[in-house]
Amino acid sequence: MSKPKAVVLLSGGLDSTTVLAIARAEGHDPYALSFRYGQRHTVELDAAARVAAAAGVSAHVVADIDLRAFGGSALTDDSIAVPHHDSADDVAADIPVTYVPARNTIFLSFALAWAETLGAADVFIGVNALDYSGYPDCRPEYIAAYERMANLATRAGVEGTTRLRIHTPLIDLTKAQIIERGLSLGVDYGLTHSCYDPVAERACGSCDSCLLRARGFAEVGVTDPALRPVG
Amino acid sequence: MSKPKAVVLLSGGLDSTTVLAIARAEGHDPYALSFRYGQRHTVELDAAARVAAAAGVSAHVVADIDLRAFGGSALTDDSIAVPHHDSADDVAADIPVTYVPARNTIFLSFALAWAETLGAADVFIGVNALDYSGYPDCRPEYIAAYERMANLATRAGVEGTTRLRIHTPLIDLTKAQIIERGLSLGVDYGLTHSCYDPVAERACGSCDSCLLRARGFAEVGVTDPALRPVG
Repeated sequence: MSKPKAVVLLSGGLDSTTVLAIARAEGHDPYALSFRYGQRHTVELDAAARVAAAAGVSAHVVADIDLRAFGGSALTDDSIAVPHHDSADDVAADIPVTYVPARNTIFLSFALAWAETLGAADVFIGVNALDYSGYPDCRPEYIAAYERMANLATRAGVEGTTRLRIHTPLIDLTKAQIIERGLSLGVDYGLTHSCYDPVAERACGSCDSCLLRARGFAEVGVTDPALRPVG
Repeated sequence: MSKPKAVVLLSGGLDSTTVLAIARAEGHDPYALSFRYGQRHTVELDAAARVAAAAGVSAHVVADIDLRAFGGSALTDDSIAVPHHDSADDVAADIPVTYVPARNTIFLSFALAWAETLGAADVFIGVNALDYSGYPDCRPEYIAAYERMANLATRAGVEGTTRLRIHTPLIDLTKAQIIERGLSLGVDYGLTHSCYDPVAERACGSCDSCLLRARGFAEVGVTDPALRPVG
């Protein structure tokens, strides 16, 4: 019997790369989906391509959607600066300016479209409610509402043939727990990219994403392979 | 006091053009949103631009999103033919091949993103559960689930400052009732385009959309101004 297909949202960062490994470990045939959405850190798409190739996914689609038309986020609007801090303890608990309006809703909607045409009943997304509690679209109650809506949105939902499930295997893990899980599955984090504000394709080390990643590796007691000098 | 902003999904067809007029009549300041999604009937975008200009909207954004990457619909895949019939009575009651997987979910998600950056609490969409009962994402229970999800997805939802509402003023109207409503609001249907399968920018007259439109005008007893010879 062939493995069940699953659409995996893949940014090329640490979380989504771990999710891809989990989807595969759970017996799914992963189809990776990334977005060129106007983010300032397009270097993450190179990472997504590396990760997808290393994982040997059945397909990797990069969808072009320009969210700059709407603005409202430091990740898509050059006039809004990405915040930098000295320590992960300084990362704000409220909704940060790096929040992209409705981004996960848009990403999941494309995943839903692809799942429907693939005949897949499973979508994986690396949202996390601990380290990013400030993002409204990373909370369990949001995901549950999305899943309910999705099952009313599609042909399968009407015909009652398939029940779509949104998998969020990282939702209640700390960054250290995510890294431990990934390492146990053989993930090469040297392929990934997390920085919101890279300079010449190098991680800045001081944005929220860099700080949370660094703290995670420190807690696990492992050197982040993405920080090792090349060559 | 300024009018409340509303995002109006505008395809350039009969339904969404009527919705735009209704949003304005109900006292909103409309922001029109259209999509270049890989549809074979891109001529509808010219109609959307004409309609938006005639209505004097505050802004009209055409978002580029290529749904052809996923396929699965006669509207986005040239290898799947658009069905043609002799009469509106022959339009299938089950889900037709012109259904685009998750299209309304994707469209609403972009509308949600724009609403959030505009500070708008209202989104209008011309879904209709009567003439298109075959489309899963045109049903009232789907819209209700979407609205619930949307209110958990956004900054406003978390902060409790605004409750987003998805307006579906056409949902239980017949095509004839929609046309009557639009005519009473002064809509010029000569600006609109409904055909799924136009030839040289002319409506085919025999796709589901053309047939339902023609029956609507016949029931109202009015000639469709889009069919009048030009000049």
